[in-house]
Amino acid sequence: MATTEGTKLWGGRFVGNTDPVMESFNASIAYDQRMWDADIRGSKAYVKALEKAQLVSMEENQKILHGLDQVNAPTSTVFTTIKSRYCTTKYTNNELIGAPGGKLHTGRSRNDQVVTDMRLWLRDAIATLTSDALQLISTMVERAAVEINVLFPGYTHLQRAQPIRWSHWILSHAVALSRDVDRLLEIKKRVNVLPLGSGAIAGTPFNIDRELLQKGFWLLMASFLFWASLCLTHLSKMAEDLMLYSTKEFSFVTLSDAYSTGSSLMPQKRNADSLELIRSKAGRLFGRCAGFMMTLKGLPSTYNKDLQEDKEAMFDCYDTVHAVLQVTTGVLSTLKINQSVMEAALSPDMLATDLAYYLVRKGVPFRDAHSLSGKAVFTAESKNVSLNQLTKEDLIAISPLFEDDVSSLWDYQSSVEQYSAPGGTAKSSVETQVEHLRKWTKILMQ
Amino acid sequence: MATTEGTKLWGGRFVGNTDPVMESFNASIAYDQRMWDADIRGSKAYVKALEKAQLVSMEENQKILHGLDQVNAPTSTVFTTIKSRYCTTKYTNNELIGAPGGKLHTGRSRNDQVVTDMRLWLRDAIATLTSDALQLISTMVERAAVEINVLFPGYTHLQRAQPIRWSHWILSHAVALSRDVDRLLEIKKRVNVLPLGSGAIAGTPFNIDRELLQKGFWLLMASFLFWASLCLTHLSKMAEDLMLYSTKEFSFVTLSDAYSTGSSLMPQKRNADSLELIRSKAGRLFGRCAGFMMTLKGLPSTYNKDLQEDKEAMFDCYDTVHAVLQVTTGVLSTLKINQSVMEAALSPDMLATDLAYYLVRKGVPFRDAHSLSGKAVFTAESKNVSLNQLTKEDLIAISPLFEDDVSSLWDYQSSVEQYSAPGGTAKSSVETQVEHLRKWTKILMQ
Amino acid sequence: MATTEGTKLWGGRFVGNTDPVMESFNASIAYDQRMWDADIRGSKAYVKALEKAQLVSMEENQKILHGLDQVNAPTSTVFTTIKSRYCTTKYTNNELIGAPGGKLHTGRSRNDQVVTDMRLWLRDAIATLTSDALQLISTMVERAAVEINVLFPGYTHLQRAQPIRWSHWILSHAVALSRDVDRLLEIKKRVNVLPLGSGAIAGTPFNIDRELLQKGFWLLMASFLFWASLCLTHLSKMAEDLMLYSTKEFSFVTLSDAYSTGSSLMPQKRNADSLELIRSKAGRLFGRCAGFMMTLKGLPSTYNKDLQEDKEAMFDCYDTVHAVLQVTTGVLSTLKINQSVMEAALSPDMLATDLAYYLVRKGVPFRDAHSLSGKAVFTAESKNVSLNQLTKEDLIAISPLFEDDVSSLWDYQSSVEQYSAPGGTAKSSVETQVEHLRKWTKILMQ
Amino acid sequence: MATTEGTKLWGGRFVGNTDPVMESFNASIAYDQRMWDADIRGSKAYVKALEKAQLVSMEENQKILHGLDQVNAPTSTVFTTIKSRYCTTKYTNNELIGAPGGKLHTGRSRNDQVVTDMRLWLRDAIATLTSDALQLISTMVERAAVEINVLFPGYTHLQRAQPIRWSHWILSHAVALSRDVDRLLEIKKRVNVLPLGSGAIAGTPFNIDRELLQKGFWLLMASFLFWASLCLTHLSKMAEDLMLYSTKEFSFVTLSDAYSTGSSLMPQKRNADSLELIRSKAGRLFGRCAGFMMTLKGLPSTYNKDLQEDKEAMFDCYDTVHAVLQVTTGVLSTLKINQSVMEAALSPDMLATDLAYYLVRKGVPFRDAHSLSGKAVFTAESKNVSLNQLTKEDLIAISPLFEDDVSSLWDYQSSVEQYSAPGGTAKSSVETQVEHLRKWTKILMQ
Repeated sequence: MATTEGTKLWGGRFVGNTDPVMESFNASIAYDQRMWDADIRGSKAYVKALEKAQLVSMEENQKILHGLDQVNAPTSTVFTTIKSRYCTTKYTNNELIGAPGGKLHTGRSRNDQVVTDMRLWLRDAIATLTSDALQLISTMVERAAVEINVLFPGYTHLQRAQPIRWSHWILSHAVALSRDVDRLLEIKKRVNVLPLGSGAIAGTPFNIDRELLQKGFWLLMASFLFWASLCLTHLSKMAEDLMLYSTKEFSFVTLSDAYSTGSSLMPQKRNADSLELIRSKAGRLFGRCAGFMMTLKGLPSTYNKDLQEDKEAMFDCYDTVHAVLQVTTGVLSTLKINQSVMEAALSPDMLATDLAYYLVRKGVPFRDAHSLSGKAVFTAESKNVSLNQLTKEDLIAISPLFEDDVSSLWDYQSSVEQYSAPGGTAKSSVETQVEHLRKWTKILMQ
Repeated sequence: MATTEGTKLWGGRFVGNTDPVMESFNASIAYDQRMWDADIRGSKAYVKALEKAQLVSMEENQKILHGLDQVNAPTSTVFTTIKSRYCTTKYTNNELIGAPGGKLHTGRSRNDQVVTDMRLWLRDAIATLTSDALQLISTMVERAAVEINVLFPGYTHLQRAQPIRWSHWILSHAVALSRDVDRLLEIKKRVNVLPLGSGAIAGTPFNIDRELLQKGFWLLMASFLFWASLCLTHLSKMAEDLMLYSTKEFSFVTLSDAYSTGSSLMPQKRNADSLELIRSKAGRLFGRCAGFMMTLKGLPSTYNKDLQEDKEAMFDCYDTVHAVLQVTTGVLSTLKINQSVMEAALSPDMLATDLAYYLVRKGVPFRDAHSLSGKAVFTAESKNVSLNQLTKEDLIAISPLFEDDVSSLWDYQSSVEQYSAPGGTAKSSVETQVEHLRKWTKILMQ
Repeated sequence: MATTEGTKLWGGRFVGNTDPVMESFNASIAYDQRMWDADIRGSKAYVKALEKAQLVSMEENQKILHGLDQVNAPTSTVFTTIKSRYCTTKYTNNELIGAPGGKLHTGRSRNDQVVTDMRLWLRDAIATLTSDALQLISTMVERAAVEINVLFPGYTHLQRAQPIRWSHWILSHAVALSRDVDRLLEIKKRVNVLPLGSGAIAGTPFNIDRELLQKGFWLLMASFLFWASLCLTHLSKMAEDLMLYSTKEFSFVTLSDAYSTGSSLMPQKRNADSLELIRSKAGRLFGRCAGFMMTLKGLPSTYNKDLQEDKEAMFDCYDTVHAVLQVTTGVLSTLKINQSVMEAALSPDMLATDLAYYLVRKGVPFRDAHSLSGKAVFTAESKNVSLNQLTKEDLIAISPLFEDDVSSLWDYQSSVEQYSAPGGTAKSSVETQVEHLRKWTKILMQ
Repeated sequence: MATTEGTKLWGGRFVGNTDPVMESFNASIAYDQRMWDADIRGSKAYVKALEKAQLVSMEENQKILHGLDQVNAPTSTVFTTIKSRYCTTKYTNNELIGAPGGKLHTGRSRNDQVVTDMRLWLRDAIATLTSDALQLISTMVERAAVEINVLFPGYTHLQRAQPIRWSHWILSHAVALSRDVDRLLEIKKRVNVLPLGSGAIAGTPFNIDRELLQKGFWLLMASFLFWASLCLTHLSKMAEDLMLYSTKEFSFVTLSDAYSTGSSLMPQKRNADSLELIRSKAGRLFGRCAGFMMTLKGLPSTYNKDLQEDKEAMFDCYDTVHAVLQVTTGVLSTLKINQSVMEAALSPDMLATDLAYYLVRKGVPFRDAHSLSGKAVFTAESKNVSLNQLTKEDLIAISPLFEDDVSSLWDYQSSVEQYSAPGGTAKSSVETQVEHLRKWTKILMQ
């Protein structure tokens, strides 16, 4: 029994040996190390609270704080040694702090400490991710402002639908990203509720109120994992669009070399690897969320070791979103658009809705107007001409309401200018959105 | 071609036949019917907007509104016929409205209409779910208030940890539920942004800004599905606790007959079926969320038919959470607690932490105190006595700081009273929580 | 108490009332009805076993069998009434059978019965799905045989890679489907292990061995759900390919009207709705699998009510795969290919690998040859000519090994004929695969 | 341009710079290193095939093989350097092999090579996992054989149902595990189909048939991930049982110290951490499966960079199942059962089904017998006595068929001996299963 004493916190209790596989299974060193700084900060806050509650003296407080500073000094050779023996649960009783180190654990379970570490860590992580997202939004907004005059086909069901501005496409994704940021800031509010420091320490045990705060913690963590997968699901859709636009067949955009790779077999290939990686990560992160939700399901209340799965998921979600946002910023700030190809992809049949609206303005109910416009499309196809090449006779045969002024419809710029409602594709609407997003981003960046 | 005209909105375009399997695959009648009322309301709002934009006359407006009222009158024989031909896209051109019906579709795609219907429907659904959750919370709070004096073992890792109040256990879940309500209210805010009626209709087409609003819609829908699975994951944990408490071995609670069922084979059995059903639904709903996220992944922007999966998922999540919350309320308002069994389950070893705190108060660092208390537990086990039966000599052999006053520790009521910090298990803390939740619930119920 | 007696199988036990929400929550009528036939068959087999074990007399056996036939006769007016009171647990004690009906439950729990029903039902369902898949494979194989000479670009990373046969693309998916069938047949083997009839009934209770068989059952069910989602994930990939091929930009294929739909807003649109629906269902079914796995996780051994989730998932997976396979067969048997567009999409740079192989055949290590061919591509791009328009001088500047015979490379038909290894895109390889799949399908169809 | 040449395989093509975040995002070094050995073996097989196809000379073959041996020698200082520059794509052109190294890539894309590596690696991994599972099954079988006479309560719905053998419980899980092994062996068959070496190399390019084999590969990989999550879902259920059995309330088993841990706060606690970790991993691995399925969904055919997610998932699934099986073996080989507590948990009401069977043997239909037995249970509860303490009068009041011999029912050993059908809980049935599993395991271990 003597031999195991001191090597485990619960040294007084156990007499048996441990299984090395079980030990490594149970180990959390790799994750603990990433929270090293957060742990030191949390312990410093905690020792102050202990002093206030008169559970450590001012002198002990000083010793502990000094010891914590020492172990955290990256220049000291102690740093790396200690780090490998991490976490503070283990280092505080050592030569650096001396006896008072043992008091740091008063009324604080290992789980309290880890949850505090995770909240502190996540707070920083969310700040970084917010900044990443704002930088991406900014890049998109400025690109939209510069290329505001470029038109290209808007698609629904992957079929050419109506002419829209390229900037309109960019902003639709920027707006979706701004909502991702809104959702992240709601999570941030909840993360900031720290168990340590969330009230006076009355000189009494308070394990149970910790448990209460902890319970909310894992549902909060699940929310963060879901946020990450929702954000990347959104980006997977944007990546899919860009991947199509960068095919030979569409040829609307060309990725810079920095975000493409070649083929080891086919010398002429130029693959949009960056977009494929972006697209792939939504699955990865949703898998993390699904895994953690399944782990949570049906667990008894309070802490169970199953919850240890939270850390790896949290780190992976952060790392992945962090990288994806940066790579997406890189892709969007360096890709070239092929304006002439974009505009050449517009065709008169994409104005068939305008043709229906022409009749609506002459008093035809929309449903009938839609049907008549459909007949015009069918006639054009049958005659193998484009919609704007139908003769006056062709049109009058479909509806006597068609007159000479129908020719004014066949102009893509005029067409898009009709959509001047908020969120529309008219120049003024896009400019309004640019301004709105610029202001919103600026406020949040402060 | 003539034969297909009129049977489809895009009658003017298609000449081929359809596959019945494809037809039923594509069908949405079952889901449309549930949104019947929402659709009528949405159409009424829309026709007013069209009048304001001078796209329908005041007289046409009246005709359409009158027609919509007629089709919605459940007494009319038309009602059911129409309902089966649903939705308004199809009924408005009929004998009830006449020609103006065709104008209802001006500038409104089928997808705009359906998204509006879903938002209106979901708004009502969220109101109902909020009310369900508040009723459950209320039930829990009042039960906690009445049974505030009952103690029983608090568990971590399914092992008896420390004595807590039964009301404390109840409230820990009530608080978690109150956070579920908070999250739901955040979703409600976003649902209330309606595409129809969210701006002037300038007498011009505005399909594209709809698309923009639609995009956010499916990520919003995913958030609702996740909310539902998170809420039920939480309830799966509460159900798991209660299931354990209702085993023969724990015997802390007895479910009422209304929430138990017997066995078709074993006459003596009494199964907590209600709790098992509650527990099972977290998986079901997370499956809905997972399915929809996977469907969303990698879709091109704007509408794709894949998104049709949203409706069934939304209805199922609503129905399931609605039922689970009601059943849980029923379970919690009718179960009986077995107070004597609960209290008999407390044992002196659950006060080992208090024993450590005794030493802490005498100046021993917590880590050492923990180790010494562990030795006391070990000694008691070795001697096959309970912790409070250790002799003074036993204790002094462990630490000379133990004195006669140690005997005052062996009182469960005193023990819980130490935890008077916010969220703690002391009576005053529990009462504070009861008051807080009562007020919070009352405000939201208004 | 009198009133509830007889309305529940466990009538002798319960005295309380039930909650209507709980009742409907617990209800399985909708699912039971789909297993009506399987249940009658299972009960018939079971009563024979009971007779063999001398637990019912020959006469009672006859009465029960006769009663079961009566309730199952769709012409009888009893049929529908009974069906709504389903399942056999409930109908067997009625006027149709009389007293012996009560013996049908000897040694058979409700769960045994339901698991047997599900196995019988699933056996039929698997037979139908196998047949559906074979019909689809057959359609693909015959289409590949007819259109064997059509070439078009093979893509990797959505970028044009090398010329391949259109039939080669078809067969790659047919082969993947044949593996789906293989996997399904493995599941079928396990489904055929029926708990009822899997051994003598020794006149003794045998509930527990049932439990044993049941345990395997839910993992088997999870395997079926995963099979369904894997099969549809594969089809989602094929649908994605076809969706791209049917865009205006690719224009390789045109879906028949039966599998396309128009837009309610844009008269010129023709959307590949069928393909989008196919693609969407992978998510739906994987959601079912995810939900059921999460429900299974951490359940105690033997039957728990949570497992009731199995039926809806099973039915949905069957219905969905059944419909998807049929619709996919419809799509593939009616779509038109645009051969001239396909062939026009081939370009000399897709033969850059052949250019490298030219050098390999002259002794250059592949890596160097790849690099030299890449330089040729780069030179052609710089000169804005296509790869086959490089002059002899251009090529010799890159490598002196290039000679006049390089011109023979620029032939797509010759290029594909090089790939004559098994599974290759040469005509002979494709023909071999056609023959293999024809034989394989024929054997399984018997 | 010169600077980038040689650092990338596609050196001849690219002129731009790369983004370091993108580089690390795209990196696979960490995963490649684990497949180092498999890669060397695959390359050796491949160079032999190239020689056979006369694409490398015998001399070049020797040089390459020699070079591969050199880089793989762990004693050489080159080893680690090279390993960090891994994979063979990169090391073969170096000083160790010389010029012939460049030939190793002939007709082999990077993806072919990696898929081959993964198949080779997975083949070994499956062998290890099979061995792990067999060792666990063996441990369980031998334990069941030794403790065959111990009875304890069988539970359904977590309620005491009928007396069963403890060995019966063990074997029910051993049988489920044996099915996991069966499923794994089916996957193994498919893994063994190697793209490299699966046919003659005809001296011609054969990239496309590789793609065909590759396609099957990712669905195969998904099957492996699902296998792993299904296996751990099963173990999560066994862990849940054991966790309950190890609570204070059940007290059926005591985990050895090696598989328990203490609490940092509560000295008396002894947590079944090992079981909680086992239970948690089902979620983790199903998350991997879910993530990969979502990544696969809707991908275009052939290789896309998204598929890079496969490796991390494969390694994690292997590592986790490998550890879980070992830890479970450790837990099951060291836990102590508390036989007296187990047997004391049996109570006469668990024989209520036997009481019903008593009446069945006297000709009462089971349903009526069930109801009468239920009344007996109810009467006993009302009188507050146990079922076997009902007087003859009590019983006769319920049914006149009860006679004196009813007293012979109240014997747990006799009760279990009735269940002698295959898979039953009678001693002979359990012994048969022990023998069967012993033989089965022995055959597979060879």
